[in-house]
Amino acid sequence: MNTQGFVHEVDLSRFVTDVLGAAGARSEDAASVARVLVDADLRGVDTHGVARLPAYVRLVDRGFIDLEARPTVRTRSAAVMVVDAGNGLGQPASEFSVEQACILAEEFGIGWVTTRRSNHFGCAGYYSRLAADRGFVALAGTNSAAVVAPTRATRRFLGTNPLAFSAPGGSGTGVNLDMSTSAVSSGKLERAIREGYSVPTGWTITPEGEATTDPSGGVPAGGALLPLGGTEQHSSYKGYGLGLLVEIMSGTLAGGPFGPDVGPLTSSAPKGPAGISHFFMVLDPERFGLERPFVESVDLLCDTLRGLPAADPTRPVLVPGDPEAQHLAERRRSGIPVHASVLQTLDALANRLGLRPLSR
Amino acid sequence: MNTQGFVHEVDLSRFVTDVLGAAGARSEDAASVARVLVDADLRGVDTHGVARLPAYVRLVDRGFIDLEARPTVRTRSAAVMVVDAGNGLGQPASEFSVEQACILAEEFGIGWVTTRRSNHFGCAGYYSRLAADRGFVALAGTNSAAVVAPTRATRRFLGTNPLAFSAPGGSGTGVNLDMSTSAVSSGKLERAIREGYSVPTGWTITPEGEATTDPSGGVPAGGALLPLGGTEQHSSYKGYGLGLLVEIMSGTLAGGPFGPDVGPLTSSAPKGPAGISHFFMVLDPERFGLERPFVESVDLLCDTLRGLPAADPTRPVLVPGDPEAQHLAERRRSGIPVHASVLQTLDALANRLGLRPLSR
Repeated sequence: MNTQGFVHEVDLSRFVTDVLGAAGARSEDAASVARVLVDADLRGVDTHGVARLPAYVRLVDRGFIDLEARPTVRTRSAAVMVVDAGNGLGQPASEFSVEQACILAEEFGIGWVTTRRSNHFGCAGYYSRLAADRGFVALAGTNSAAVVAPTRATRRFLGTNPLAFSAPGGSGTGVNLDMSTSAVSSGKLERAIREGYSVPTGWTITPEGEATTDPSGGVPAGGALLPLGGTEQHSSYKGYGLGLLVEIMSGTLAGGPFGPDVGPLTSSAPKGPAGISHFFMVLDPERFGLERPFVESVDLLCDTLRGLPAADPTRPVLVPGDPEAQHLAERRRSGIPVHASVLQTLDALANRLGLRPLSR
Repeated sequence: MNTQGFVHEVDLSRFVTDVLGAAGARSEDAASVARVLVDADLRGVDTHGVARLPAYVRLVDRGFIDLEARPTVRTRSAAVMVVDAGNGLGQPASEFSVEQACILAEEFGIGWVTTRRSNHFGCAGYYSRLAADRGFVALAGTNSAAVVAPTRATRRFLGTNPLAFSAPGGSGTGVNLDMSTSAVSSGKLERAIREGYSVPTGWTITPEGEATTDPSGGVPAGGALLPLGGTEQHSSYKGYGLGLLVEIMSGTLAGGPFGPDVGPLTSSAPKGPAGISHFFMVLDPERFGLERPFVESVDLLCDTLRGLPAADPTRPVLVPGDPEAQHLAERRRSGIPVHASVLQTLDALANRLGLRPLSR
């Protein structure tokens, strides 16, 4: 770790476990959160990394995250399971759920787990990769606090409701898609505000439902993000439909709340537990009687895609997950750059808990 | 049926079965194709309705669609099945596959069927609705002839690879999302050419990979459609990623061809059977131990969405499937408008097969 705010993954991980431990988390739960958050930072998804930690601790302090909770199997029926996270941390509940989905897939070829009464779980892609690392094809998704306006609506109703998909490669890294179903993530809007540039039409609307290129006039003013596609002319109803797909596959199948009743993680005055729901689907490609091993076909498909002629030769065609893999290689080597404002917040948190700050 | 080209669904259906019967199809297979195509016409998805019939017959004539084929179960392993369509018509193979997926879902709570060596199956949404009509939540998807350029690429590589999702309602119609993973469908581009208007940036690129607003300069000139999102600034890598998800879940899991090797239905010189692959996932919401019946939760969610304030009060917020349901009600009453050029092509086909034309 050096003074420029570059932190080694081991130090960052220890910091997360120390903070959560001091807040009262069991060590295995703290380790789970650290794995998921630091993995996001390593892969360049800074908005879903340790920057989230202070909000988690705030929800613990207010009694909305229950550190005593353990994920339990609520119902199981053949290849379908519902896990109850008991309002505990989202990461250990989700790692448990993926583990269960893999066990189901081993038995039945496919397994589906819906997780209820959970919290923010970090990056959806972490969980689909977890299953892909064991040779499975996987989907993962979650609902989240309302910030996206359905097509034609003026009001926030759906979360950014991310959807992740992983298919394992053999010698290659495979495919790892991790996408919000909104036009952009909240993080990109926040960066535009921080760096003072205007954003394209189709990212965000004002509280009156009007298009704006001023990022501060959108979400921070009470407006909303738009679904993937942006405008109706660019098929935003598809992004909206995908957000609704994730909502139903997580919240509705979990019997959980939906829309604005899903607890806002970042709200300064949450009214109760977040009531976030997730889903995990795991599928075993070994069950398909394939002549060529599945992972080899995935490698061939990926290599063919990467070899396609690019409009701009300096910007080659990528496979979903490639940018994150590039960040991973770079940051494992050089450390994780932590933004000064994040570092300051984390140090204040450490100070309050009587821990050593991250920055020295 | 009247002289303005409005055709009653019963007459249109009989026309399809007569044509396919004359071409040599078994009556139950012809009926399957008629159900799927006429349903698309009834729901306003004219590009996937009877307008496709001449191309099917052309592929039969050239020996690339085998009318003797019957879909068979190639492998089954617990809740996962591979169906071999044997290069037969896509619709009977897909109806068979959905039926099998429902049987698997009844036994295991979830069922997955991948269908190989198939042909164009019509609207993906037909199949997810088929399962939803029986109370299931369902996904359906297919790969298709290469026409979409991956983000940054100049060349067609993926099909429009549609993804459909259905969740049943109780008193309501539920959610029926049926979307191509491209920015727009080929049909919308064709309409712009026919009606002579320019299209927005983000729909299509020239053969050199450059953005164009001239629809004739895109796909018809050898260019490509862009993925959902359109440009990289508008997150087109998400649409590309979704197209790849569908490609892997259909073609790769089927051990089928991918990219430009997937047979172009509309090609004037196909080189062999299409080798199209589909997938169908069926999930039983009864297995989730829900206190409130799932269909009631879906109704509540849909009604809440439809009641959201709209930016333009004359354009209310819709739920995926609402526009198609509106068309269905209208066209059941007033008949299906068949475009003059489609009518002409269908009549020429009827004439060639010694059948009564559709137009009188």
